[in-house]
Amino acid sequence: MSVVYGRVALIGLGLIASSMFWGIRRGTLAGEVTGYARSAETRETARQIGLCDEVCDTLADAVRDADLVVLCVPVGVMGAVAEQIAPHLKPGAVVSDVGSVKRQVIEAVGPHIPEGVHFIPTHPIAGTEHSGPTSGFAELFDNRWCLIVPPPGADEAEVARMEQFWRALGSMTDRMEPDHHDLVLAVTSHAPHLIAYTMVGVADDLRRVTDSEVIKYSAAGFRDFTRIAASDPTMWRDVFLSNKEATLEVLGRFTEELFALQRAIRQGDGEHLHAYFTRTRAIRRGIIEAGQDTNEPNFGRGKA
Amino acid sequence: MSVVYGRVALIGLGLIASSMFWGIRRGTLAGEVTGYARSAETRETARQIGLCDEVCDTLADAVRDADLVVLCVPVGVMGAVAEQIAPHLKPGAVVSDVGSVKRQVIEAVGPHIPEGVHFIPTHPIAGTEHSGPTSGFAELFDNRWCLIVPPPGADEAEVARMEQFWRALGSMTDRMEPDHHDLVLAVTSHAPHLIAYTMVGVADDLRRVTDSEVIKYSAAGFRDFTRIAASDPTMWRDVFLSNKEATLEVLGRFTEELFALQRAIRQGDGEHLHAYFTRTRAIRRGIIEAGQDTNEPNFGRGKA
Ligand SMILES: NC(=O)c1ccc[n+]([C@@H]2O[C@H](COP(=O)([O-])OP(=O)(O)OC[C@H]3O[C@@H](n4cnc5c(N)ncnc54)[C@H](OP(=O)(O)O)[C@@H]3O)[C@@H](O)[C@H]2O)c1
Ligand SMILES: NC(=O)c1ccc[n+]([C@@H]2O[C@H](COP(=O)([O-])OP(=O)(O)OC[C@H]3O[C@@H](n4cnc5c(N)ncnc54)[C@H](OP(=O)(O)O)[C@@H]3O)[C@@H](O)[C@H]2O)c1
Repeated sequence: MSVVYGRVALIGLGLIASSMFWGIRRGTLAGEVTGYARSAETRETARQIGLCDEVCDTLADAVRDADLVVLCVPVGVMGAVAEQIAPHLKPGAVVSDVGSVKRQVIEAVGPHIPEGVHFIPTHPIAGTEHSGPTSGFAELFDNRWCLIVPPPGADEAEVARMEQFWRALGSMTDRMEPDHHDLVLAVTSHAPHLIAYTMVGVADDLRRVTDSEVIKYSAAGFRDFTRIAASDPTMWRDVFLSNKEATLEVLGRFTEELFALQRAIRQGDGEHLHAYFTRTRAIRRGIIEAGQDTNEPNFGRGKA
Repeated sequence: MSVVYGRVALIGLGLIASSMFWGIRRGTLAGEVTGYARSAETRETARQIGLCDEVCDTLADAVRDADLVVLCVPVGVMGAVAEQIAPHLKPGAVVSDVGSVKRQVIEAVGPHIPEGVHFIPTHPIAGTEHSGPTSGFAELFDNRWCLIVPPPGADEAEVARMEQFWRALGSMTDRMEPDHHDLVLAVTSHAPHLIAYTMVGVADDLRRVTDSEVIKYSAAGFRDFTRIAASDPTMWRDVFLSNKEATLEVLGRFTEELFALQRAIRQGDGEHLHAYFTRTRAIRRGIIEAGQDTNEPNFGRGKA
């Protein structure tokens, strides 16, 4: 591999930024990487673990002379951060973000991008339930998709360079329109997260079942919900508030289906249930075949 | 380890029975194990892979002379199977089942148990999304809980022997009342399964998002739902129909909470969302500490 951007600035030093840094280092994809996080504590941790070649104490220092600036902060603060860095961007630089929502981030960040600076939003479809500067690893993006969402009129050479960068980080890339992105992600990510949060909250609430029972018997299916529902509260609050419309639309469809299945249970309609449960298996097969999950029972964690 | 039951008959040769067989063999917990499954095909597969010391072509042959008979069939057919084996049980034998629902199984099986035969229902809280005779492995029950649900007046020595058996299979054991069992499992297993099935069905349905998009971008949270929703349709149809009341109660609470969270999204109430998402993290921590899941990011599957 070789250098794609001379100098890269990572703004926000959490799961995604730290994984990007280790991935950049693995492939020598940048000459130098600077980093910035809001709190002195995160910056200090980053310095201790060697995250970034230089951790800066101000946004201005971090982005100065950067060829690529990647905003890796919660989607709700993307606009404010863009506004702060704007005066310090060098002409010809590329600004990107990794936010989980695209329409609202583009609307919040776009207006702050100066003339002569490129804006190329992205969304790596990869994550874990962990967050913060110590949670990253170089392999996070390997064999995962990264969506590139270029605004109308974006410079084609710069879009292609961004794709090259993400491929070098291990990802496969696709291009997508912001609204379609937000709907697809509402289905594959945002609605499932809200549902998992809800179910875990209900379990915690139910007086007649103790938390200790829930914890002991979680292996029966609930365990995977708790993993999803352990994700960062700030990131997810921002995602739901920034992708309201699509999330509510998908949840509306979900509620309709759930009511139909509840009715089938109440009325003892075994055929409806069996047919529904049979149909959903095909999607699983597709995911295994596409290499987006393992078919190991229990992800292999069942075997001691 | 040493022999707990001289002769064990496994009725139904799917995930649970095959895992029990390999676990019994690992620990030499029985002198001989016979097996029976409904279809000639499953019996043939079992013979080919050496599942059970003897695979019988009739229920009568399988249970004759057995000291322990374990019903490992879908909960909806437990009663019918019990009725068929009843005339062939030897005096003093123990009949057990591993069904995911207890109240209705006890009501369906109990009346068929002859005088002088013990009935001790159990439920190992362990599973994967796979089913059938080739899906089992000896370690399935290791470090998982097995609930023992003895009917009133059960023979204490036989209940203790059952606990010894499951501990020798690698499990920890607890005793529970049938109704409480069904409520706890509605929370930790039945409701989460229905929710996962529903969400995967909705994704498959949504016209504006293609199946190929859902599959490619599943790593964003949806993937775990598809794993749960790949479970056997017959087993799960039976579970929902046999545990109607508790499942519908938990789903009712779930729907209420989901509506409250949807309202918070619609109204932009970030505080409500953040507080809710923060609370659910504690349960996850409990599960990790109790050794019921790994804290590896992405169960380690994120690392190539
Ligand atoms: N996690 C995922 O699964 C995933 C996947 C794909 C995309 N994304 C997106 O990637 C972005 C980052 O997510 P992450 O998981 O890496 O988050 P994270 O681990 O929680 O890290 C967020 C970082 O942003 C910084 N930050 C927060 N507010 C800030 C502000 N007002 N100004 C400057 N910095 C601020 C935090 O600094 P402090 O540490 O000092 O608070 C922290 O370093 C989000 O937009 C998210 O939607 C996440
Ligand atoms: N899977 C789990 O996660 C899990 C966990 C705990 C408890 N359980 C409970 O354990 C039991 C078995 O589940 P499993 O996952 O092992 O199921 P499975 O892999 O689908 O196997 C079911 C077995 O039952 C046989 N069977 C079905 N209907 C029958 C009938 N009418 N008469 C005789 N045999 C019949 C099947 O025979 P054929 O192969 O010939 O069709 C098959 O061998 C269920 O009650 C389930 O609720 C399951």
